[in-house]
Amino acid sequence: MIKSQDSGSGSGSGSGSGSGSASRARAVALDAADPLRAFRDRFVIDDGLVYLDGNSLGRLPKATLERLHDVAAVQWGERVVRAWDEGWMELPVQIGDRLGDAVLGAAPGQVVVADSTTVCFYKLASAALDLRPGRSEIVTDVDNFPTDRYVLEGLARARGLELRLMEFDRAAGPEPDQLAPALGAQTGLVTFSHVSYRSAHIAEMAAITALAHQAGALTLWDLSHSAGSVPVALDADGADLAVGCTYKYLNGGPGAPAYMYVRRHLQDELRQPIWGWLGRRDPFEMEQGYVPAAGARALLSGTPPVLALAAVDEGLGLVAAAGIDAIRAKGIALTELAIELADAALAPHGVSIASPRDPARRGAHVALAHPDSERLCAELIDRDVIPDFRRPDVIRFGFSPLTTRFTDVWDGIDTLRELLSV
Amino acid sequence: MIKSQDSGSGSGSGSGSGSGSASRARAVALDAADPLRAFRDRFVIDDGLVYLDGNSLGRLPKATLERLHDVAAVQWGERVVRAWDEGWMELPVQIGDRLGDAVLGAAPGQVVVADSTTVCFYKLASAALDLRPGRSEIVTDVDNFPTDRYVLEGLARARGLELRLMEFDRAAGPEPDQLAPALGAQTGLVTFSHVSYRSAHIAEMAAITALAHQAGALTLWDLSHSAGSVPVALDADGADLAVGCTYKYLNGGPGAPAYMYVRRHLQDELRQPIWGWLGRRDPFEMEQGYVPAAGARALLSGTPPVLALAAVDEGLGLVAAAGIDAIRAKGIALTELAIELADAALAPHGVSIASPRDPARRGAHVALAHPDSERLCAELIDRDVIPDFRRPDVIRFGFSPLTTRFTDVWDGIDTLRELLSV
Repeated sequence: MIKSQDSGSGSGSGSGSGSGSASRARAVALDAADPLRAFRDRFVIDDGLVYLDGNSLGRLPKATLERLHDVAAVQWGERVVRAWDEGWMELPVQIGDRLGDAVLGAAPGQVVVADSTTVCFYKLASAALDLRPGRSEIVTDVDNFPTDRYVLEGLARARGLELRLMEFDRAAGPEPDQLAPALGAQTGLVTFSHVSYRSAHIAEMAAITALAHQAGALTLWDLSHSAGSVPVALDADGADLAVGCTYKYLNGGPGAPAYMYVRRHLQDELRQPIWGWLGRRDPFEMEQGYVPAAGARALLSGTPPVLALAAVDEGLGLVAAAGIDAIRAKGIALTELAIELADAALAPHGVSIASPRDPARRGAHVALAHPDSERLCAELIDRDVIPDFRRPDVIRFGFSPLTTRFTDVWDGIDTLRELLSV
Repeated sequence: MIKSQDSGSGSGSGSGSGSGSASRARAVALDAADPLRAFRDRFVIDDGLVYLDGNSLGRLPKATLERLHDVAAVQWGERVVRAWDEGWMELPVQIGDRLGDAVLGAAPGQVVVADSTTVCFYKLASAALDLRPGRSEIVTDVDNFPTDRYVLEGLARARGLELRLMEFDRAAGPEPDQLAPALGAQTGLVTFSHVSYRSAHIAEMAAITALAHQAGALTLWDLSHSAGSVPVALDADGADLAVGCTYKYLNGGPGAPAYMYVRRHLQDELRQPIWGWLGRRDPFEMEQGYVPAAGARALLSGTPPVLALAAVDEGLGLVAAAGIDAIRAKGIALTELAIELADAALAPHGVSIASPRDPARRGAHVALAHPDSERLCAELIDRDVIPDFRRPDVIRFGFSPLTTRFTDVWDGIDTLRELLSV
């Protein structure tokens, strides 16, 4: 389907001479018809780069540059410590509510932005286990994101619990039917990524949560690879707890703060383990004895990272403006095109699709498996196509619907085809 | 000593008509002779504000504005995810080493910059208690900074330990003679602030650490109010563990990341509780099983906050350029002037000095006690003099030697005198 190309990829339009349905001209046409195409102009983007790693680090919104300057030069520079009372103190809950509304399917008062994803995951996993004393098992999957597995391993070790690392189909993810028999009276916590960082498989949040609840366990979802790319419905799906990062599809910047969700009905009984002043009622009274603040604010520990929070707010603003349904529709279209092109042009060279083929169960990236993936990734980067390599054999092409064009998909796949054709 | 002034404070030179040794002209002369005076120009400063709260939030270095723009626009904007391999990944240890060298008296390989002070304190307190199993007591003081007390309270509750909140002279801080009899075979952890956030008392780090070690306990120091204002000698004083914040005298910005120090000989046995991917050996291998990274890097958990780390680096750079000895000398001169002026002009109005009078035992702020402190602080702020109120009765005047002028000291005290003279 893809015609052979002698010209390099990423060189702009005009290199596609194919006449088939998968020619570059078709990708150009898809870009022209893309209802989100104007959003790309709101980011700092060098058109010479085919950036397919927005699911690792999202791109820089132009508005973030201005916002950072304003927060630093005006708020910090001129208002100095007074700025805490002039808005800074509210940022973790304000941005949390905004994130809940635009992205997470969470009513206000259940989300705060703070810490790193790892620290947030630790806080909520630890708090969940405290709520299920006497239960000996934590359940997750062996292909869950490493930091989640390591945190759980540390908690299991400290508490003498068993960490059950289930093995599901690697090109998919946790399946309710396979999970059900593993849960029981011993299960304290069930935790998965909503979208798998490797396969992009979307876990069935409602079904898995229901299974966990039948067993009397709590659920903790890692939304890092779904928030901002696929709809999340924490409230509707009955999720207990969730965390996620803001530097992927939410474009919050490198190492941006993460977020925590605690379902309202759990907030009175749940107590996170890091009792800091910002999570206390009336922190500036500096009283003796820790008394948790009301609601989600009790999830906070230390002083809010103001500069980084401002950047999160700008990135989130663009996702909110585009709307998650439009983002999802484009994410499906981008991954469908990638899979179609890969089937036609890469499969003959031994590349297989290691992501779900059903778009309803696939997030916004595509895993391409090939034995030489590590070398191929390095060569792609040399040609200004930026994927991710994931051991042992996956090339991960991530598509960030606000910034990735259909021509980027075409160019990425075509460059890989060229490398494989040598 | 201070002549009565009808003009408002903060109105610049010329308002001091007094002929005594404490006239404003003397403060002007001290500023002219200040070897650090050029540093003030390297910060964004509105001369109409008498800012005496740099010990709560330090001011914005001009270089930080450029650095933030560069990190965002060039590194994030253009290099995107490639920037992790081009320097970002090293920032926590690089800035940690620089901080150790310039400020903390710590040889390389013992300090990392990460998380919030509260989370860092939790990690190291928890790890220390793990190293002293079977010991039932944590020792600190009732006037220690609130977040430290709350973290310890949470850890004590979770582990069934006793939190011993000792009471020392409130205008001073932990005294070795009073502490010694409280320590014994039951003591697992001894933790104090190096400089008290209320009184500015400097704790005797070497003597207290020696006492703790005699009892078989570990020490954890909070350096938030000392780092960047008084010399710290972690290695020489035998300290085991330390944490601190970077947004006070280090001018790292609101909610800037904190730091952790773990003495080299403890690094092999100490294991912090939040096992994240960035603290693992070879994090991007994404292997099964947590294996801590070598050295201080094992203290990391989540992804480094790059924008915020860059700001810390710039703030630290100014402290390093000035040199901690010059900073300390000016800090003593500023607080000596403040106490002299307060004794002369404020004591008749019922203000007492709630900080040590011995400059060798006093950090860079001065606590002034008065029954109406809360109201007086609000009125000072209305007149563009920015102190801190600390319950129940303290007005805290903080002097940041790189930005505070002797005339700021004079204007601050004189404005308070005016308020008290009404």
